[in-house]
Amino acid sequence: MLDIGYLNGHFSPLEEIKISPDDRGFLFGDGVYEVIRAYHGVPAFWSEHFNRLVRSANEIRLHFSIEQPQFQRLLLSGLHQSGYEEGKIYIQVTRGVAPREHTFPSNVDSTVFLAFRKMVALPTEVYQQGVRVITLPDIRWHRCDIKSLNLLPNVMAKQKAREAKAFEGVFVRDGQVTEGATSNIFAVKNGVLITPERNHFVLAGVTQQQVATLAQAKGLDVQFRPMAISEFLQSDEIFLVGTTIEVLPVIQVNEQTIHDGKPGPISTALQKDFSSYVASLTLQ
Amino acid sequence: MLDIGYLNGHFSPLEEIKISPDDRGFLFGDGVYEVIRAYHGVPAFWSEHFNRLVRSANEIRLHFSIEQPQFQRLLLSGLHQSGYEEGKIYIQVTRGVAPREHTFPSNVDSTVFLAFRKMVALPTEVYQQGVRVITLPDIRWHRCDIKSLNLLPNVMAKQKAREAKAFEGVFVRDGQVTEGATSNIFAVKNGVLITPERNHFVLAGVTQQQVATLAQAKGLDVQFRPMAISEFLQSDEIFLVGTTIEVLPVIQVNEQTIHDGKPGPISTALQKDFSSYVASLTLQ
Repeated sequence: MLDIGYLNGHFSPLEEIKISPDDRGFLFGDGVYEVIRAYHGVPAFWSEHFNRLVRSANEIRLHFSIEQPQFQRLLLSGLHQSGYEEGKIYIQVTRGVAPREHTFPSNVDSTVFLAFRKMVALPTEVYQQGVRVITLPDIRWHRCDIKSLNLLPNVMAKQKAREAKAFEGVFVRDGQVTEGATSNIFAVKNGVLITPERNHFVLAGVTQQQVATLAQAKGLDVQFRPMAISEFLQSDEIFLVGTTIEVLPVIQVNEQTIHDGKPGPISTALQKDFSSYVASLTLQ
Repeated sequence: MLDIGYLNGHFSPLEEIKISPDDRGFLFGDGVYEVIRAYHGVPAFWSEHFNRLVRSANEIRLHFSIEQPQFQRLLLSGLHQSGYEEGKIYIQVTRGVAPREHTFPSNVDSTVFLAFRKMVALPTEVYQQGVRVITLPDIRWHRCDIKSLNLLPNVMAKQKAREAKAFEGVFVRDGQVTEGATSNIFAVKNGVLITPERNHFVLAGVTQQQVATLAQAKGLDVQFRPMAISEFLQSDEIFLVGTTIEVLPVIQVNEQTIHDGKPGPISTALQKDFSSYVASLTLQ
């Protein structure tokens, strides 16, 4: 088994891939990305990730010419070459290579980079115990709905969380919870799920949508709407969702314990539902 | 004469430099940069640029171990190898190469990348005629004082300006002019110079400071303070400042002509003063 890379039409061992320092991803963060988890060889929620990649690219007017079926073949080929059944697939598309000028280069192909690595999941105990998060001011730009490479504030927030012995940094903008540095957020109050509405300050999470659908299938009410930090802190349950973490219960926010300090029943049930769902996925 | 690159201790032709796709500059824009103009072989305002590079790096807690004198030797060596007397030196420092995780990697050296290219100045006529700018909402993050690689909003703004047949996009946040996508801004009213105060929303410009100093040497009053868009539009003169453009008169903002639509006397005089100043620079 081997980490595999793909760059503009060619697969190779990941460590052999090299890019130009004039790539606009390197100079400007001028590109978009997706992270996809493969379960038993099946890239999960592929069409949702692909659609979001296209949307992000469109929003920054970045064109790439690989259609969805062809892109899917690349994913399956790379995954196969890597030998990983449980894989983490990284997709990055940038505005290509050109001497440094802010304006878009003319007649330059976009850079398409893929990396296929082994997925290393969080230990089961982390799900059983739940995690702590800290809150931080959301100082990011005003287009967080675009999954772009401009991730410095996310890097700083995640690092700050780690140093505070927390799993995640949760952003708060104008008194409202937006999202985690690397995840979306759900809260539960009186059996109702609340997750921040999708606007320019929040990424439309693939796992967020999937978990909402699973919750609705259980008969739960799911509200996509603004959530004030005060409401958030008074939740019965909180959990993070994301491609690599799935459904991860939160038991403490800053110094405040949430409810009884244990993963709540809805969080736990949804993580089980999610696990079952991805276990059942087959190649489309 | 040849474009020269430098990567982590080694010079080579720029086109031969390759970086890892796991460089955090490529994945996260997790790094900082400077652009320095060399006049007749002399990197201008080197200590100011170096100090700002160090400050930007410190603000994102990025460490690099090259001291100023050693860094200056790299600049002079690269410039000499390139053969360019009139050069554009690009410096980029990133948090290094590591498998993709948001948190800082442990025991990883930062990436230091330099590029030495020929400086191609704007034609004289552009200075004589002045340029048009457009205004745009400043949707950038809230730490624009850090010269980071998270430049996607700047890219989009500069592109939008070009498509509007304007030279620059000028950002406006909460009714206040902040800066251009690639420049700082000055306005002149009744002989007084106004430039946006330096805070978390504005980069502390090296040319901005130098021009302020030159203006003060002429006996002009220079105010670093907030400037509302309404005040900006009623200026007698406007000009952009930056490393590659020096002092560039603005004659139109959006559809509005500034004063009589010609470069004003203070803008023109300061561009001359700046030219004379850089012409007199010698190696320290």
